[in-house]
Amino acid sequence: MLKVGIIGATGYAGGELVRLVSNHSELEISFLDSRSYASVEYSKIYPNFKNIVDNKCISINLEKDLDEIDVFFIALPHGLSQGLVKKILEKNKKVIDLSADFRLRDVDTYEEWYTVKHEAKELLVKAVYGLCEIYADRIREADLVANPGCYPTSVILPLYPLLKERLIDSDIIIVDAKSGVSGAGRSVKDANLFSQCNENLRAYGIGTHRHTPEIEQELSTAAGKRVMAQFTPHLAPMTRGILSTIYLTNNKKVKAREIRDTLEYYYKNQQFIRILEEGEYPQTKAVYGSNYCDIGFKMDERTNTIVVVSAIDNLVKGAAGQAVQNMNLMFGFDIDEGLKQPPVWP
Amino acid sequence: MLKVGIIGATGYAGGELVRLVSNHSELEISFLDSRSYASVEYSKIYPNFKNIVDNKCISINLEKDLDEIDVFFIALPHGLSQGLVKKILEKNKKVIDLSADFRLRDVDTYEEWYTVKHEAKELLVKAVYGLCEIYADRIREADLVANPGCYPTSVILPLYPLLKERLIDSDIIIVDAKSGVSGAGRSVKDANLFSQCNENLRAYGIGTHRHTPEIEQELSTAAGKRVMAQFTPHLAPMTRGILSTIYLTNNKKVKAREIRDTLEYYYKNQQFIRILEEGEYPQTKAVYGSNYCDIGFKMDERTNTIVVVSAIDNLVKGAAGQAVQNMNLMFGFDIDEGLKQPPVWP
Amino acid sequence: MLKVGIIGATGYAGGELVRLVSNHSELEISFLDSRSYASVEYSKIYPNFKNIVDNKCISINLEKDLDEIDVFFIALPHGLSQGLVKKILEKNKKVIDLSADFRLRDVDTYEEWYTVKHEAKELLVKAVYGLCEIYADRIREADLVANPGCYPTSVILPLYPLLKERLIDSDIIIVDAKSGVSGAGRSVKDANLFSQCNENLRAYGIGTHRHTPEIEQELSTAAGKRVMAQFTPHLAPMTRGILSTIYLTNNKKVKAREIRDTLEYYYKNQQFIRILEEGEYPQTKAVYGSNYCDIGFKMDERTNTIVVVSAIDNLVKGAAGQAVQNMNLMFGFDIDEGLKQPPVWP
Amino acid sequence: MLKVGIIGATGYAGGELVRLVSNHSELEISFLDSRSYASVEYSKIYPNFKNIVDNKCISINLEKDLDEIDVFFIALPHGLSQGLVKKILEKNKKVIDLSADFRLRDVDTYEEWYTVKHEAKELLVKAVYGLCEIYADRIREADLVANPGCYPTSVILPLYPLLKERLIDSDIIIVDAKSGVSGAGRSVKDANLFSQCNENLRAYGIGTHRHTPEIEQELSTAAGKRVMAQFTPHLAPMTRGILSTIYLTNNKKVKAREIRDTLEYYYKNQQFIRILEEGEYPQTKAVYGSNYCDIGFKMDERTNTIVVVSAIDNLVKGAAGQAVQNMNLMFGFDIDEGLKQPPVWP
Repeated sequence: MLKVGIIGATGYAGGELVRLVSNHSELEISFLDSRSYASVEYSKIYPNFKNIVDNKCISINLEKDLDEIDVFFIALPHGLSQGLVKKILEKNKKVIDLSADFRLRDVDTYEEWYTVKHEAKELLVKAVYGLCEIYADRIREADLVANPGCYPTSVILPLYPLLKERLIDSDIIIVDAKSGVSGAGRSVKDANLFSQCNENLRAYGIGTHRHTPEIEQELSTAAGKRVMAQFTPHLAPMTRGILSTIYLTNNKKVKAREIRDTLEYYYKNQQFIRILEEGEYPQTKAVYGSNYCDIGFKMDERTNTIVVVSAIDNLVKGAAGQAVQNMNLMFGFDIDEGLKQPPVWP
Repeated sequence: MLKVGIIGATGYAGGELVRLVSNHSELEISFLDSRSYASVEYSKIYPNFKNIVDNKCISINLEKDLDEIDVFFIALPHGLSQGLVKKILEKNKKVIDLSADFRLRDVDTYEEWYTVKHEAKELLVKAVYGLCEIYADRIREADLVANPGCYPTSVILPLYPLLKERLIDSDIIIVDAKSGVSGAGRSVKDANLFSQCNENLRAYGIGTHRHTPEIEQELSTAAGKRVMAQFTPHLAPMTRGILSTIYLTNNKKVKAREIRDTLEYYYKNQQFIRILEEGEYPQTKAVYGSNYCDIGFKMDERTNTIVVVSAIDNLVKGAAGQAVQNMNLMFGFDIDEGLKQPPVWP
Repeated sequence: MLKVGIIGATGYAGGELVRLVSNHSELEISFLDSRSYASVEYSKIYPNFKNIVDNKCISINLEKDLDEIDVFFIALPHGLSQGLVKKILEKNKKVIDLSADFRLRDVDTYEEWYTVKHEAKELLVKAVYGLCEIYADRIREADLVANPGCYPTSVILPLYPLLKERLIDSDIIIVDAKSGVSGAGRSVKDANLFSQCNENLRAYGIGTHRHTPEIEQELSTAAGKRVMAQFTPHLAPMTRGILSTIYLTNNKKVKAREIRDTLEYYYKNQQFIRILEEGEYPQTKAVYGSNYCDIGFKMDERTNTIVVVSAIDNLVKGAAGQAVQNMNLMFGFDIDEGLKQPPVWP
Repeated sequence: MLKVGIIGATGYAGGELVRLVSNHSELEISFLDSRSYASVEYSKIYPNFKNIVDNKCISINLEKDLDEIDVFFIALPHGLSQGLVKKILEKNKKVIDLSADFRLRDVDTYEEWYTVKHEAKELLVKAVYGLCEIYADRIREADLVANPGCYPTSVILPLYPLLKERLIDSDIIIVDAKSGVSGAGRSVKDANLFSQCNENLRAYGIGTHRHTPEIEQELSTAAGKRVMAQFTPHLAPMTRGILSTIYLTNNKKVKAREIRDTLEYYYKNQQFIRILEEGEYPQTKAVYGSNYCDIGFKMDERTNTIVVVSAIDNLVKGAAGQAVQNMNLMFGFDIDEGLKQPPVWP
């Protein structure tokens, strides 16, 4: 059994990691770290874990608590994991960082969009962007995996094959994404109150959301040239789920068949990617609580537009599930170990 | 007091008409027609109206029941109002039709998208498209008003001024619209069940929704040339509200100031249109239960895109509220009579 | 036009007061007080009021800002209104206090349940408990009205007539009440987050909720003897609404007819009370956004139990609506002025 | 691997069975029966199962399709399983029936409350009431298990020990239960529409719900005397979950300690029952998607009432999960096989 430490265990991504790790046959939780809840029983914060997880939260001391741990998950807000990662790597341990700190290869882009200085830039070259279906080979060798953001996961997975195969030749791609409220985390603010979010739908951070450069980095890599994303996120009145609707000009006159063949070819051995049939579109409920990414599309001949739609559970494939999938790759476990439960419907 | 007859009073648009008409100082409900609920007390179907509306539903006979009515609202599914409208106009009465039957000026387009024959094409020339803020003058003179669809209202109101003033010169406009479930009406089908819609978000009818030609008709009118809309509707887990996010290429390099000035100029005397300030975006809760249309936008310089966002209550500004506003114009009442209550928040 | 000042205008009850007052033909808002949002435009906090309410919040100074105001609403948390009320009454102004501070006639009970000292006990004799349908005569004469709590309103209205007429002779009455999340106010805490409340239902404060003595005070008054309430509140995943299900032992073997006759007799001229027919039970949606209280009941002969169910909108009849109704009584306006809009359905 | 047949696989309980069975290490789905969807791919009805369950629905013929199946689950509405069960037992196969048909030992009670004739009364003596934590020994030997109803499960589990140990001596017990909408099944009717259920809470079937005699049968068994339940179900605006709040007069002056000790003693080896600590109350989210039943209580000394609260997921512990747990008992598998995933939060 691998010993696992989760740093920042009391946010929603941390809670989801605990759910998945506690059900993983090769893992055992060593500690759950939380500065604000140190010495509180974890199941007092997340009552779903009563009698399942009996840890108390601790506030870890990386100088001494590191040795017996095999793998670390860090689920802290951006800017807080850099020093931790450094210490973990110095001890030759493996770490999956769910924050944004090691996702962007270009440090200037990071510092511009996140408006903080990067304190561990020398590690960026070691970091592998943990999009499992695309970078599995590199992830298997990695010590430091930068777990992708929720929105980027939902956007890059459907687009990567299309750009890579040059089926699309856009400089600008329009992404209209809708997220459940858990995507905003457990931060206690007016905008996340039930009475404010329920029966409400709104756009936010148009053109300025921090996931934009992450999306662009990967789409550009795929396309072999600079691609920009017009990214508009929305908050929808639901707890979980991201639905991304992506608009591509069909400037190379490809056929629906080519799109479908390409997606199916790229993902034919990827069990967590499901390509829907013609006329079917993804819905967030169909992936609820699971690590699936559903992808559908429509060739709108009239307007010469390809509309691609994807759905993920933002806390699973968009965070903790993908982190476990990365760890499975890093340690040679079955790719779906700990991730086998089907989506919950209804 | 004007005597009002509502035909098709038991759908959601019908119910909303009753709510607004019953609170209108110049109106009195004469009959509530419903084939399926004939002789049932209306407040048994809509318990909110207990002790407020004491009508029983009737199944009207237009040969005899017409004479004492001053104005008719028809809230039937498309295809059912054509014969009724003919009879009403023959008696020199005024009618606001909430169905799609008289919205499209081109009968072939109607028959193609709605896949039914139009049985009253000769009346199409008499019909005025009832978008109050744009066609007020013609509505004042009209006997037959075709009340706009919910999605089209949310799309045309923000775009009309921009196209009319040639600030945008697109042939194709991308519209990503999200609607509450009441937009699907009271039709009893699996897809509208609570357990299916709750915690779920999905796209549907991509590129094939029947509101597409209605949107295109009006945008083309504004632009003075053929404009197409790539229209993708979504179902969101809420009862009321439409949020439309519209993507325009800034191919004429206009400034934010010009967009703002144009919208403000067009709507400066239109109390139901609210232009939000820079950095503010519409949210459906801010218009809940009211006749407002909120409009915001963002110039995304990086991607050279103008993102326009609008919010309406689909049952009020998108249906019954706009119908009452049309009637206010037709009979010379204050434009906001019956529509004064502020939105309900939270 | 009466000049109105609202103290504590930025909580949910305050926001609802603004909604109702802004639509009241005899009232004009003079100021909206908020310590935390002083000098912020009110419509920045509540975007539904854009272009409707153009006030900026102020932090009032009661020494100087009092003179030109005709009536005050106070919507502060308990403990904060006592000094304000004193100053207002000294200036011979009328005040409706929505807090709990003047609801309990017995100061010891207040201090025990609210665990604060009462700083204005001498005013308790002047305070009238503002349950409009029961105490209208006294309210008309009052300068200080203590607006009832949301849960108590939903419990006392259906039970008062039954206890007064001695149809029930219980010492202990069981009240199982379910509230929407807006009842918890706008306080920003973990338990009120969307992701925590959505798809969740829970009991809280069993036997210890502060509304218990308020319920007992009024039920005891009605019964002419000490009556206790076993009061169990629940939080339901909705924004608005309270449904109270009340269990009474039919120890006097009354008939359904007597219950019905008594309720109908007491409330026959009370337009905001609706007694449902046999077999019909209240639902919160039927009173949404309105000042109605719906009451239904079932004689369960098998178990010798009378089950009484009531529904209100906690922010209207349970707070701001009843406050406006009280003010209508105090100033001789029509009882439904500002409260005429029908409930919003769906 | 045991071969499983699910009869009535397309209702919500059927769908949940498929979710759990597909993740059970000892089971393999042989067929999914559905009259209305025969020959439709199961994953077209439940898109969450795409690429997970590739069965097409069949309409089984019990004369020929029975032989190779090891165990049957029947998830049909009441009245439809009687003939099927007879045929299955004749072939010496084991069956878990999720309908109400074999739950009530007294056939007259069944026929009175369900208003249909029982066509297989001779089998009632063979049927074991499948409340796993209470009747495990008998279930292990059973060929026919009557899987308990959702509401009864939530009521009997917390009360059985208290009545059995004579801590309570009531003739009448008050049960106020709140259920998510999935409890009403997938039946397509107006009352289950999203727009009707969302932001709504209502009581229904007060004193007449068919789960009443089932509750009473088991409580009477426990108490060793006739016990009646005043049972009031409510519909809450959520998909899953039942919260039952139960009111008991403390007529034997027991202490909180005795209640707690008794519950803990009865359930100390029952991993799916969690007794919450003092001051903690169950919430439906803490059991979401899982087979847990959470139980808490409050001694309200003031009113001499014991308030017991329980929470289950109506589709898991209240239906499919308990059915799998029963099957685990019948075949000697680990009790939690297929039921290990922790509840989903948030």
